[in-house]
Amino acid sequence: MKTYDFRSGCTDPASFPTANLAGYAVQAINDVGIDFARYPEQGHLGLREVIAERESQREGVKVFPDNISLMNGSMQAVTLIAEALMEKPGDIILTEELTYSGTLSIYKRLGAQLVGIPMDEHGMRIDALENTLNELHRKGTPPRFIYSLPTYHNPTGILMPKSRRLELIDVALKYNTVVVDDNCYGDVHFDGKKEPSFYALNESPNIIYLCSLSKILGPGLRLGYLLARPPMFDRIMERRFDGGNSLLAASICAAYLKDNLWDYVTKANFILKKKRDAVCAGLESSVNDICTWSHPVGGIFIWVKFPSDVDRLKLEALLNKKGILYGHGSAYHVKEQDIPYLRLAFGYCSLEDIHKCIPLIGQAIRASRKTMAQTQVAV
Amino acid sequence: MKTYDFRSGCTDPASFPTANLAGYAVQAINDVGIDFARYPEQGHLGLREVIAERESQREGVKVFPDNISLMNGSMQAVTLIAEALMEKPGDIILTEELTYSGTLSIYKRLGAQLVGIPMDEHGMRIDALENTLNELHRKGTPPRFIYSLPTYHNPTGILMPKSRRLELIDVALKYNTVVVDDNCYGDVHFDGKKEPSFYALNESPNIIYLCSLSKILGPGLRLGYLLARPPMFDRIMERRFDGGNSLLAASICAAYLKDNLWDYVTKANFILKKKRDAVCAGLESSVNDICTWSHPVGGIFIWVKFPSDVDRLKLEALLNKKGILYGHGSAYHVKEQDIPYLRLAFGYCSLEDIHKCIPLIGQAIRASRKTMAQTQVAV
Repeated sequence: MKTYDFRSGCTDPASFPTANLAGYAVQAINDVGIDFARYPEQGHLGLREVIAERESQREGVKVFPDNISLMNGSMQAVTLIAEALMEKPGDIILTEELTYSGTLSIYKRLGAQLVGIPMDEHGMRIDALENTLNELHRKGTPPRFIYSLPTYHNPTGILMPKSRRLELIDVALKYNTVVVDDNCYGDVHFDGKKEPSFYALNESPNIIYLCSLSKILGPGLRLGYLLARPPMFDRIMERRFDGGNSLLAASICAAYLKDNLWDYVTKANFILKKKRDAVCAGLESSVNDICTWSHPVGGIFIWVKFPSDVDRLKLEALLNKKGILYGHGSAYHVKEQDIPYLRLAFGYCSLEDIHKCIPLIGQAIRASRKTMAQTQVAV
Repeated sequence: MKTYDFRSGCTDPASFPTANLAGYAVQAINDVGIDFARYPEQGHLGLREVIAERESQREGVKVFPDNISLMNGSMQAVTLIAEALMEKPGDIILTEELTYSGTLSIYKRLGAQLVGIPMDEHGMRIDALENTLNELHRKGTPPRFIYSLPTYHNPTGILMPKSRRLELIDVALKYNTVVVDDNCYGDVHFDGKKEPSFYALNESPNIIYLCSLSKILGPGLRLGYLLARPPMFDRIMERRFDGGNSLLAASICAAYLKDNLWDYVTKANFILKKKRDAVCAGLESSVNDICTWSHPVGGIFIWVKFPSDVDRLKLEALLNKKGILYGHGSAYHVKEQDIPYLRLAFGYCSLEDIHKCIPLIGQAIRASRKTMAQTQVAV
């Protein structure tokens, strides 16, 4: 049976520049040459230069290749930061109340105690953050860091406005708290103005920035990166033991991106925007009367609220039967609360499959309601 | 100033098949294609198949690609095993009394308590291992695992005979202890017969095997791997959070190795053997009267014992002045004991540099002696 993957946060496969990337491989490999016999440590300099330029252009601030370390996907960075900054099991990490399921699962496995900060339509609420920091400091258990997804938040798609970002940084630094800005969707932008990263708003070494090539090119490359100023940069690197990221993967991507980064991003975003619109249109025509959903200006997720009387197990069973995979709301809740939401990752499936599947998802939601299912259809 | 690196465990740079590898890149990248938009998880199947074949051929047993996970160098595997199997700081790990400095430093940073098992000319002593296991079990503090380098041991070059391997497995399994076989030098073989890996001698899932492409091709690729049978395999993978190893690096190496593995290994070993011989000849002609050293049948290290009255700081200063880097004996001792040894990694420097530097190292050893320096020369 064919599978329709609306669960994984993957990019548009058809956009992947296979032939073009291959065209850069020969020269890139020859350029590395005898350096393949050395450990890469911080990673291929050429790619770090391309990345520094990418960040400088997007954020309008100077970025130094020496402050960048290439990672085996940004998930290595997510992991490494907690390993470096946690002192003992039970240490507290703050996140948005809803956040990336992978981060939640990693931090729980590392023994952290996660405290979720409530959100509003602009992201993490600053009053709630300050109350929590105040209380944790009073108790003598300050958090090791705040992990935030301020840009095209996963799963909600919220873009935190600059004013909120400045407030967040102010409060965090007032309590001497490290802030991790996971900006992996940073360049997946569709509409309206962009907002600056935390590190572009403040030079504190207590701001750590993560990004990746996974959401523009593809996660199969495993090319993420961490950007931080010393001494934080060195503190994180001290906990890294794997000898660095592959020069083979990095050199080829560097050669390709040097010539093609922004053209590629523009082209890929054009398709992704169409997919976003197709998902929203499908929801509009099939569940407009019973569901609400996000309209993200970037990123690759639609966050759908369904009626609270939907039987989650029945919904899953119905969609599984059709090969449709999606993200369950509880996976993104810091306390795994069974909230009436599902996440549709719209990067991977084709437009055709989106047109086909979204009405099926709508039907399944209706068919899974415990009450009123008949009346609703009749409304 | 030019640096002569006898410190890093790197391969022969001139052997790296740059042009040949580049020749395989285009087809390999095209073959992966849209899979770049997916997470690699266990890693590129083609490379795991090549590796399974490599292991089957060397070890004479069936190896399954499903039991292999590609790693960001075998150092990721070294790290992951401890992260997966340790329960708390202070947990005990057994190693040979002398072992790879990287492993020692990782395990210490992870909070393990390292207990070194004394060695003889055949490697880890089984009587000492059994005594230690017996004592630790009696105390209620059994070790989490035994980390061993039975093949071309780092730093001593010792090749553990099959009979000793069988004894080690017997004792370990009797005490229900996990054994990690780090075979990263496995194919770097010069003389005489080979010895089988632990996993080829016993089917217990408590035997974990590590290997790498770093010591045949180069560490810049960051392509190591872990091989283990279930349920151990899954237990280790549960602690892995990085989404897998790059499909870009792995697919290119798979295509190259499928056609070239053993020819390449033969060619690279031919050069490395010459380098080993050149180091030994240089030591023979310069410090035959005051030093002894290993004559390894494989691997990339010579372990040199110098007179105990050598001033270590002076030796280092003299060699630093000439740009000569080497491994300090204490770095390989589980308790960092200041033993009168140095390690010469002979893979990276050219034959010409070896001919030039080994006599300089000899001179520096003589010049660093606190006593008898004059009389020894006159003997």
